[in-house]
Amino acid sequence: MSLDPARLSFNEITADHLSLQAAVEACAASGIGWFGPWRHKLGPGAAERINAAGLRVSSLCRGGFFPATGAATRAERIKDNRLAVEQATELGTDVLVLVCGPAPDGDLEAARRQVLEGIETLLPHAAEHGVQLGIEPLHPMMIAERSVVVTLAQALDLAERFDPAGVGVVIDAYHVWWDPGLEAQTERAVGRILGYHVSDWLSPTPDVLAGRGMMGDGVIDLPRIRALVEAAGYDGPIEVEVINPALAELPTAELMSTVRERFERCC
Amino acid sequence: MSLDPARLSFNEITADHLSLQAAVEACAASGIGWFGPWRHKLGPGAAERINAAGLRVSSLCRGGFFPATGAATRAERIKDNRLAVEQATELGTDVLVLVCGPAPDGDLEAARRQVLEGIETLLPHAAEHGVQLGIEPLHPMMIAERSVVVTLAQALDLAERFDPAGVGVVIDAYHVWWDPGLEAQTERAVGRILGYHVSDWLSPTPDVLAGRGMMGDGVIDLPRIRALVEAAGYDGPIEVEVINPALAELPTAELMSTVRERFERCC
Repeated sequence: MSLDPARLSFNEITADHLSLQAAVEACAASGIGWFGPWRHKLGPGAAERINAAGLRVSSLCRGGFFPATGAATRAERIKDNRLAVEQATELGTDVLVLVCGPAPDGDLEAARRQVLEGIETLLPHAAEHGVQLGIEPLHPMMIAERSVVVTLAQALDLAERFDPAGVGVVIDAYHVWWDPGLEAQTERAVGRILGYHVSDWLSPTPDVLAGRGMMGDGVIDLPRIRALVEAAGYDGPIEVEVINPALAELPTAELMSTVRERFERCC
Repeated sequence: MSLDPARLSFNEITADHLSLQAAVEACAASGIGWFGPWRHKLGPGAAERINAAGLRVSSLCRGGFFPATGAATRAERIKDNRLAVEQATELGTDVLVLVCGPAPDGDLEAARRQVLEGIETLLPHAAEHGVQLGIEPLHPMMIAERSVVVTLAQALDLAERFDPAGVGVVIDAYHVWWDPGLEAQTERAVGRILGYHVSDWLSPTPDVLAGRGMMGDGVIDLPRIRALVEAAGYDGPIEVEVINPALAELPTAELMSTVRERFERCC
């Protein structure tokens, strides 16, 4: 059964080559109703631009990057995360996606403790603003550059230390599809899923960080994973997040129609 | 404390650009006592060449690749694995490393069942020959090309269905270092560890399948992982398995001395 296009949210990094204005116009022109902005593309009037295009914001990418060498740097990261919470509020979304950050010195366990401390420290500010923190486990191949949180089980271990009103998880099919524990962990995630992202796994994978494929071009059984996520109670927007610089070579209208068509047919 | 070079085994794929004869001569010349051959480099007289260089064989790479479309193809794979068992015996090693294989059609769970069936089918022949099957979990980024077995927990789930005399696991630091469950799973692996491999994780990683680094050039805390493996009772040879075509550009003597020096200092 094809997926309802009303659930499609366009994650901005899929068109990182476009300005925010061009991206929201392209979404509006192709009938996409949700948008997932990234902080590096925000600027004066960002919320107004998104609103003017008639889009709702599904989440803000991204907070996190908690581990760092030295208390001063870690405090700066918290300050930046507080700003991200405020930006989420301004954009009208109640979900801040956390990419938790790598280990600054190769000590994974110390970095994982700093992630927990970072979430604890940020949480009161987020709660005051009505923003939920969504811990996104990243694929283990991204551990050295992006995140020491690499499995859904680990993200849930972290989230479950807090009230579900404040902390949950964001599940991205690209990051979790390999996991033999995926079925058990999505069952466990009931009440904690704050977002679901899709793209596809190309074989061979051209790049560890930016080699994702458009849904349908790879090997992930996306309908199976969506069924698991839906069985766990998630029925919100689904963000299409295809990180691949090759997409910048497509005409914008073609990119958007491909996203929409693949979303309905392959996810 | 530096690592005893008597435990160093040179995994042949580290010098895939050399002939078997050149590789074993290079090992002998640099005082390396163990060798881990790959099947695609074997040929008439392989065992004699290795023996003549004074080397012992730590394991044979590789059996596995069980999942396939159609019973006939799966039966061919079993036949090839039976040959691998016989080759291991001929080479004088009692460990056949299993790289279990990818899913031929994207159905991970079906492929995982075929891995289990493959091991069950192969086991009597291996037992007759006194060869143990070592299930090697591969990094999750290799799932589409190499193995649906991607965590140590999953490899142990498989191994524990059989007698430890017949089936165990091979732990490669490169494949497991990211795993939040590594400590618990190595503890669980007591009596099951048939081999330990080292290389390093480069950041950025230049290639998903062949982008490994020499020990000390990357971010893995190798002494920590060796301590876990040793605490679980493994005190056998440690294979240096650095898969990276850039190594072919080094003069052989320099490659071997680097392997040896890094093994003693960084592992």
